[in-house]
Amino acid sequence: MLTPSMEDYLETIYELMKEKGYARVSDIATILAVQPSSVTKMIQKLDEKNFVTYEKYRGLVLTPEGEQLGRNMKQRHRMLEDFLRLLGVGESTIRKDVEGIEHHISPSTMRSLQSLVLFFQEYPEYQRAFERFRRLQAGTAEDRSTENLKVMDE
Amino acid sequence: MLTPSMEDYLETIYELMKEKGYARVSDIATILAVQPSSVTKMIQKLDEKNFVTYEKYRGLVLTPEGEQLGRNMKQRHRMLEDFLRLLGVGESTIRKDVEGIEHHISPSTMRSLQSLVLFFQEYPEYQRAFERFRRLQAGTAEDRSTENLKVMDE
Ligand SMILES: [Mn+2]
Ligand SMILES: [Mn+2]
Repeated sequence: MLTPSMEDYLETIYELMKEKGYARVSDIATILAVQPSSVTKMIQKLDEKNFVTYEKYRGLVLTPEGEQLGRNMKQRHRMLEDFLRLLGVGESTIRKDVEGIEHHISPSTMRSLQSLVLFFQEYPEYQRAFERFRRLQAGTAEDRSTENLKVMDE
Repeated sequence: MLTPSMEDYLETIYELMKEKGYARVSDIATILAVQPSSVTKMIQKLDEKNFVTYEKYRGLVLTPEGEQLGRNMKQRHRMLEDFLRLLGVGESTIRKDVEGIEHHISPSTMRSLQSLVLFFQEYPEYQRAFERFRRLQAGTAEDRSTENLKVMDE
């Protein structure tokens, strides 16, 4: 089992490897907004689990299993962003919600969500119908439940 | 700001009050699978935040603000269940995923998800179209990506 924190690290290391070809402790620390010492500790744990390893000259690299997991994390993150975007959620809320939600999505839930995203992409007329429906809903909901939502927005 | 744990407590106390008219420490402990001493500690915190209070004869009760929050938690939980059920996710996965996801859903994301659930309820022909699409997807996906998903299911 991976912890949410391990998932974030694997995703970040995977992204850095793809972008730059290497993943430095300082870059990981900046992206995840943690201390370099925390990064070092987590890398040790990921090393024990055989998800990362150190190679002479190249430095930190993902093992094949680590790379597979990192790719999965990245795909899941992107898919959730696409899904919330499709629902009309704003970008800053998407960023915040996805960082939390992604760690609690089972593979089977992910497959179903992915299908829904593809479904709307394949049938844009259904997506437009939903879009109209959502705007109408938002209009009528505003009058009656602004109070409820204020409490939750706090 | 409420912590995920506070949200679970408020939801549970709200449910017990609705079902039985009172919320006993022992019942809360059983439902949340925690020690009674943890319940007592959390009730103190919720009391400090004015979400619960003790009334002579009645015992633990929710304040109006606590009741509002508990109701919101309960609605959010139900709505997420409805949403995943609509996607065709299995019941045990729904239970597991919702307990994690619910704490990371912003009010605006919740409103959009709610609209999607209502949209499919209002237009069952679209839901059937999605259902067919999803089954087709699941069939073709099985061949090529069983390997990927195995890694994540672990
Ligand atoms: Mn992420
Ligand atoms: Mn819940």
